[in-house]
Order: sequence, then C-alpha cells, then structure tokens
Amino acid sequence: MTTHQQSVGVTAAKGFRAAGVTAGIKASGTPDLALVVNEGPSYAAAGVFTSNRVKAAPVLWSQQVLKGGQLAAVVLNSGGANACTGPEGFQDTHATAERVGTELGVSAGEVAVCSTGLIGERLPMDLLLPGITLAAKELAVDGGEAAAIAIKTTDTVHKTAQVTQDGWTVGGMAKGAGMLAPGLATMLVVLTTDAAVDAAQLDVALRGATRTTFDRVDSDGCMSTNDTVLLLASGAAQVTPGQAEFAAAVEQVCADLARQLIGDAEGASKDIRIDVTGAATEDEAVTVARTIARNNLLKCAIHGEDPNWGRVLAAIGTTAAAFDPDQLDVAINGVWVCRGGAVGEDRSLVDMTDRQVVITADLHAGPAAATVWTNDLTADYVHENSAYST
Amino acid sequence: MTTHQQSVGVTAAKGFRAAGVTAGIKASGTPDLALVVNEGPSYAAAGVFTSNRVKAAPVLWSQQVLKGGQLAAVVLNSGGANACTGPEGFQDTHATAERVGTELGVSAGEVAVCSTGLIGERLPMDLLLPGITLAAKELAVDGGEAAAIAIKTTDTVHKTAQVTQDGWTVGGMAKGAGMLAPGLATMLVVLTTDAAVDAAQLDVALRGATRTTFDRVDSDGCMSTNDTVLLLASGAAQVTPGQAEFAAAVEQVCADLARQLIGDAEGASKDIRIDVTGAATEDEAVTVARTIARNNLLKCAIHGEDPNWGRVLAAIGTTAAAFDPDQLDVAINGVWVCRGGAVGEDRSLVDMTDRQVVITADLHAGPAAATVWTNDLTADYVHENSAYST
Repeated sequence: MTTHQQSVGVTAAKGFRAAGVTAGIKASGTPDLALVVNEGPSYAAAGVFTSNRVKAAPVLWSQQVLKGGQLAAVVLNSGGANACTGPEGFQDTHATAERVGTELGVSAGEVAVCSTGLIGERLPMDLLLPGITLAAKELAVDGGEAAAIAIKTTDTVHKTAQVTQDGWTVGGMAKGAGMLAPGLATMLVVLTTDAAVDAAQLDVALRGATRTTFDRVDSDGCMSTNDTVLLLASGAAQVTPGQAEFAAAVEQVCADLARQLIGDAEGASKDIRIDVTGAATEDEAVTVARTIARNNLLKCAIHGEDPNWGRVLAAIGTTAAAFDPDQLDVAINGVWVCRGGAVGEDRSLVDMTDRQVVITADLHAGPAAATVWTNDLTADYVHENSAYST
Repeated sequence: MTTHQQSVGVTAAKGFRAAGVTAGIKASGTPDLALVVNEGPSYAAAGVFTSNRVKAAPVLWSQQVLKGGQLAAVVLNSGGANACTGPEGFQDTHATAERVGTELGVSAGEVAVCSTGLIGERLPMDLLLPGITLAAKELAVDGGEAAAIAIKTTDTVHKTAQVTQDGWTVGGMAKGAGMLAPGLATMLVVLTTDAAVDAAQLDVALRGATRTTFDRVDSDGCMSTNDTVLLLASGAAQVTPGQAEFAAAVEQVCADLARQLIGDAEGASKDIRIDVTGAATEDEAVTVARTIARNNLLKCAIHGEDPNWGRVLAAIGTTAAAFDPDQLDVAINGVWVCRGGAVGEDRSLVDMTDRQVVITADLHAGPAAATVWTNDLTADYVHENSAYST
C-alpha cells in the first residue's frame, strides 16, 4: 500500500502533482483553476479534441503543443471558454501557458491549456495569471480531487476515476454536464498514467477509448468548441504494459468518466442507454443509436415515463441504415413493445420508474451493435440553458 | 364576386366540397374527420410524402393511389396515426378508402387517406366508417373551415390560406404543431385549385413549393411517419395559367400555411427565422440553417431572450459547409453581435422581446442563401410531449 492509493483522479498515478484553486474567474467565488504537472521521468502525451470547426483558442494552442508528443503540464480554467475571442484570445492562451512555464521551469510549448465556460468573452487575465502562481504553490501528490473540483461548471459533482493493476495506474478527471455530443462536447478530461508508454502508444489507446466512450455520450446533440481529452504518461511506475492491456485500462477509466458525465447532465432525470443490435455495420449501429438519442420527442416521452416506442421507430426511419421497417423490434427496459414494426408486448408492462432506461432496437440487418448514452429532455434543462449567460 | 370568395381553404377554389365532422375517434369529442371532394371536370392530383422510411399505412396507400395522377377525394382523420400497425392497419386504410368510394360513387383507387395522432394503435373503425357516411352528407361548398378544424391535433388554431388571381384560385388547409421537420413532418396539407392543370404540372409546382416552404420549417428536428401534402385540381375555373405563375401561387399558399404551422408550434414562445447568406451553394445554406435550427442550447437561449451568439457559431462549426471560422458574421435581430468569428456589436443592443427572432449568419463563402424557420425550446414543449400519449 502506498500513499498513492489514497489519491484520486489525475494524481492516482505516480509522478503527478495537481492543484485546484480559486483565481476569481468565476463570479461565484468557487474554485476555477486547476493545474496538473507531470514530474517524469517520461513526458509522453496524446490528445483528442473537438471536431467542431469553430475551435476555442486553448484547443488551437493545445493541438499545436501536442504535435511534439510531450506535455509537462496542463492548466485548466472554468469561468470562461475563451472561444470566438479572436487573435487576442489566442494571445491570452499563449500568456497562460507562458506563466505556467515560468512557474514550473518548463517550456510553454509543453503546456496544454483547457478552458470552459461562456463563449465569446475574453478571460480576466489579471485574475487568471496570479491564480497560476497560487496553483503552482499548492501542487500536491494528493491534489487530484481539488483539481477535479476546480474544473466544474454546471456540474453538480466532481468526477474522477482510476484503475490500478500490476503496479501501474491510469487515472483521470472530467468536467461536463451539458453539450455532450459527437466528437466529444464541452467535456474536459485529463488522464494520467505512470506506465512507461510512448506518445504513439498513448495516441492509439486514447483514440480507441474515446471512440467507444466519450464519443458515444450524446446528452443534447450539441458539440462544444472546447472539448479536450488529454493523456499524460510519467513512466514513474517503470512498467510497460502490453498495448492491449494498457488500452483496456484507458478505456475503462474513460467509460467510468463518461458514465459519470451522463449521470450529471444538466437538468436530466433519466439516463438513457440505447443499444442498437442487428445492424449491418458498427457505423450504422452508432448512427441509428445517435439518431434515437437526439429525438426530442422521445426524450420528452421518457421524461414522462411514457414507453412511446412509435417515436423510436420514427427516429430510426430517418436514417439511411440498412433495415426493413416491417422487421424492426424495439424493447424498453426489456419489454418488446414493438415486434416486426408493429405493436408487440403490452406497453403497460414497462416499468420506467428507475433513473436508468434501456432502449433496445434490433434492426435484423446484420451482426453489428453499438451503445449510445443520452438523457431525457426536461423543463429543468430548458431553464438551465435559457438562463446560462445572463 | 362569387360565393366562393367567402369560402376558405380547400373550398376557396371552385369545384370542391368539404366537410368536417365528429366521428368519435378522439376521446375529447371534438371534430376528427374531414372529407374533401373534387367535383371536376378534371381530377388531376399530385402528392408529396414524408421521407421517413417508417411510413404509416395511409401514406403507403396514398402514394400508391397517386401513381394514377388522379384524386376524386381525400379523407383525413385526427385521433390516430395508423402508423406501425402492421397489415391490419393497412387494411383499415383500405376499408376507409372503400367506404369513401361507396358514399361518393367513385373508385377507392382515387381516394387518398391521411391520418394523424398517436403511433402504434389501431383506429376505431367502428367509429371512423360511420363518420365517413356522416361527412359525405355534410359536404358543402363552404365546408373548408369545418374540414380544417377537424384535422387539428394539438394545434391551437385551424389553418387555411388561399390566393386568387386572373379567375383561378389556389387554396388549402394544414394541420401540424410539433414534429415539423425535414422532408415535412406531422403535417397534413390539402391544397386545391380550380385551374385547369394536368398532373405533371401539379407535381412540378408542388415539389418546388414544398422544397422551399414546408421542407424549411423545422420546429423540433423530428420527422413524422405520416406527413402528406396533396394538391388537387378541378379545372372548374376553365383557365390554364402559365406554369411559373401557377407555381408561384402554390408556393405562396404553402408559405402562408408553413408560417402558420411555426406560429402554432407546440409550447413555443418564439418563432425563429434563420437566414444563412454567403453560402457556397443553396444546399449548404440549408444545411447550416437547419443545423442552427436544431441546436437545443440555442433554442433554450432564445427562449430566455439571451442573444447567445456563441451557440450559433458552435452549431455552424459542426457542419461541413464551406466557411472560414474567422470570417463568420452573426446578427440577432439586426445587431451584428459576432464579426469575423469574434465579438462584434454589444449584445445588450439586441432587443428580443418580440415573438419573432431573426438570426442572420453570413458565411462569406459564396452567393447562395436560404431561410429555415424554427421555434424556441420551452418547458411547455417538454410538458406537452411528455404527456402526449398518457
């Protein structure tokens, strides 16, 4: 037993320190700046970013930094997205990385920056930069929890996960509560490992893991300008696991964090797992599941605990996936309410009182399957998102 | 001046009679069955249907009927969609057309059927068939309003429109309040004209008109299994207008009805017109406008009268349309809050108190433009759609 076993998230793995502080960026006065530092001996890193073509300044910066395959540190702020802020916004991100470099004695070119909050406003650099100095002083081997707290926006809980096996660990933290969507969405995730793994191996493991976890979480169909998932390896455990074993651990941590994101989605009262089976290809299974996940009418019905399977069929019918409308089967919480595209078992048999709802759609068109997670659509969602910037 | 000028909707044109009655299909006891009859001398007709691959029985039936290019009558019911009801549901539609044929002395093969309501339940044929007999008795040259009333579901008002010029008329009625989406959506529209126009000309005019009107109304991104737009010509005016002139009149009536649909969308408090300009092609302009129209976060912001232009940019960024993120301009109600992808005029200048909100996005990528209409997302929408089938 080492002290690391009491540390969580980004400091669960050896070779990392972290901090979370209040810089004053958020009007609420809650923590709003996090710093994660890799103390080596290795600095290999990989990243996955939003596929939105409108990218925030910190995304453009971090993508550039990651080309070197190394990260010494990650600085994250809540309270402002620094998106759609023009050249001045990019200069702010650059200055942020420079200050971290100065405080830690590393190159700004090895510092990733993540921001989250309202789009279209400059960050208060007079508060943010002193916050970095403060965070650098508070870096600790058990700082993972404080860091996770400092990146919250509308999150109601902070989110960390970790997996330890055979002497090495993968851990991480995430923020995100709305805008979870394809190609990730306002989701900031930092993962760390003490395994001795090079940048290329990290990249493969991270892309594989995000493809089946964060990319299949689709809370409201909206894609952020700021999504970032980073994976840093310190090599401090002095163990090099097999690639498959390592990738599985990364995927496990990502799946854990993705599930926590859905469980904390803005205003949601239901977590909805959509399993599409019998698809011709995995891509088609994902497309059908995502289309179901984005159907506002269905999401409202589930909020009302109404097993309205007709809305599932209407959603499937808008896709180009291979299927025969007369062979579609749909189950809600295990009751096959639709068989052969028509009425199946009695819908009154469906119990929808639990927070988790499982919708299964069998396309009878092939061997492929996929799962996408979403939430119900609620009046609370409308309220939170109509009042966000005011 | 003829008495026809006092008749509205589907009986505004000469050669048509209509009725709307209470068959008892709806539990509410309000009118739920409409009949529109073409008395000739011509019976040319055209139709456009949902592009949803899961099609209701009446859609499958009417598509088949329209292959002949002639319609003697249209029967429409609210209170049940007859979708996902299997072979029995198709037999119900067939029996409906047969009863209309018997009552009117025409072939069932020239009777279109439209249904709207909950998916996945059989229609109460024991009530519907006597309703047809009743409606046949009540057919009248001023029955257009009664017919429009009988096809309402969650519509708060009935919807009719008409245009008269040079001795000929195009008129119509529509129902629809939610699920307005691409390729039309639970939208039933019957248009009539007394112009002497053949089926091929009707088809061209109708496809052209729906492409730029109903197809660009996207209330909630959901596409129905039942959408139908029909156009019947009686030739009773004994005038054959030029194709361009005729097409323009059809488009004008469709635009009027489409605007009424948006104005009555479920739970909406704002009608949102999205103008995309400077697109490379019209298709890209439509895609960008539709993507903005479907952004739940933006729809919530507009509900809150919050000019949150960042959400417009985040939506545009998810498309593959030609544009440079640093050249995007966005105006809300005429105030250019975003210039060159960054902060523009002061957002506090935007007045959003009116029901209509106009969002303009200039892509600076070409000469094409398009307009899509949508609504805001409200707690009332959630309420209506979480309680619909229960």
